[in-house]
Amino acid sequence: MNFVQRLERAWAAADSLLCVGLDPDTARLPEHLAGARYPLFEFSRGIVDATADLVCAFKPQIAYYAAARAEDQLEMTIAHIRRHHPGIPVILDAKRADIGSTAEMYAREAFERYQADAVTVNPYLGFDALAPFLNVKDKGVIVLCRTSNPSARDVQDLDSAGRKLYEIIAEKAARDWNANGNVLLVVGATYPEELARIRAIVGDMPILVPGVGAQGGDVAAVVANGATANGAGLVISSSRAVLYAGSGEDYAAAARAAAQTLRDEINFCRKALR
Amino acid sequence: MNFVQRLERAWAAADSLLCVGLDPDTARLPEHLAGARYPLFEFSRGIVDATADLVCAFKPQIAYYAAARAEDQLEMTIAHIRRHHPGIPVILDAKRADIGSTAEMYAREAFERYQADAVTVNPYLGFDALAPFLNVKDKGVIVLCRTSNPSARDVQDLDSAGRKLYEIIAEKAARDWNANGNVLLVVGATYPEELARIRAIVGDMPILVPGVGAQGGDVAAVVANGATANGAGLVISSSRAVLYAGSGEDYAAAARAAAQTLRDEINFCRKALR
Repeated sequence: MNFVQRLERAWAAADSLLCVGLDPDTARLPEHLAGARYPLFEFSRGIVDATADLVCAFKPQIAYYAAARAEDQLEMTIAHIRRHHPGIPVILDAKRADIGSTAEMYAREAFERYQADAVTVNPYLGFDALAPFLNVKDKGVIVLCRTSNPSARDVQDLDSAGRKLYEIIAEKAARDWNANGNVLLVVGATYPEELARIRAIVGDMPILVPGVGAQGGDVAAVVANGATANGAGLVISSSRAVLYAGSGEDYAAAARAAAQTLRDEINFCRKALR
Repeated sequence: MNFVQRLERAWAAADSLLCVGLDPDTARLPEHLAGARYPLFEFSRGIVDATADLVCAFKPQIAYYAAARAEDQLEMTIAHIRRHHPGIPVILDAKRADIGSTAEMYAREAFERYQADAVTVNPYLGFDALAPFLNVKDKGVIVLCRTSNPSARDVQDLDSAGRKLYEIIAEKAARDWNANGNVLLVVGATYPEELARIRAIVGDMPILVPGVGAQGGDVAAVVANGATANGAGLVISSSRAVLYAGSGEDYAAAARAAAQTLRDEINFCRKALR
């Protein structure tokens, strides 16, 4: 079963397009976890166990673990998901890209060391920098296309022969890079018009959409512009709005409530499409 | 003293534009190190101590340590350079880029955790993704411009209003992103014509040039097309051709010989310019 098939199963199993991003910031953890031996893991595990039946994926962001010198806790978090919630794909958000043998090392980091099911990558270096990831056929490779930040337009909106750079990346991803059927794209929720254009280019390719919640992306616009004909095709990711919904010992329950509200809002918008 | 000033001192101190890239591949280490407790560190330390008087910088590539679950050995390697060769800047080759608080975590990873003097970054996400790095005024931020791999042209050569994407990135780097005077660029040795165009755009901004040695970049063309008027401005990086010049217990001596030959070749070309 390849990554897209696993994702389709997860969409159906939880009736959810919601992905919870695991960005555990040591400065924002609930107080009662401050003294734990593995605070990022304990926090992430609490979130994971409280939201697992509501999500189609978890997306740990490696930078939070790396800044805290806590790669071991990232390993533990992913191992926990795989053991206790084996139907839920893990997307390692790492935005890697490099050339030749270095790219092979990054693919090994994501897929062998961390046992992620998919990884985010940056397209600036072109095809051969992505090939070591793409060659791992059963894993997903999620290419940055149009990111959710304001400066995304600095580079991604540059016009080349009447097309924006992000449209060219979407075309290459769908046409040239997807021989193994394992490519997905990242498109920020904050740019729903661009999401519609990208959906038109890539057919049913799944799209990871961060930026709802704290970044202000609009769920209705994301679903209307990004969903495929069957009402799926999206992995809508929220991190801070879920992780930090509560700040005390009940943080996991608060996260669950926030995740449920967001999943239900997404599903309400999906139904409105029919 | 900011990063560019440190680099200028290092150029002068070693009379060298050579940077040795530390890409310690566990599969290629000399046999006598295979049983060491910290084989990547032992290997890197041997290379560092054997070549320190010949280089202007060391450039550890984080992917090799991450794939081997050996971030601690990367920390040890950089700490060793800082303690025993304090005049030599350390460039962490990580090619990071992300948005907002995640970018801050990556900056913390590079500059606080690893204590690197500079880090390589990817420009695809635009200015705000680089800002958390750029705001650390005394550190160097080395932006990918034209990479050394064949597929670099897939994206970096796209034409927008008569200019290639890599030229636009060079302009932005020099004009919009360099308020703190801490921006440098990456331009592959395998593209000397592009290097000349970039040099014309960015004035005396230092350029990191990987791709001599194993990747086949031509030293004479790099120096002729990339050096500034004073015969410097370049950090010419070689990894495999130095690291794996020997494969036995004498690997460090072999690496030194390879580094010396390369430094002397670079200096020969610099003299030819005068």
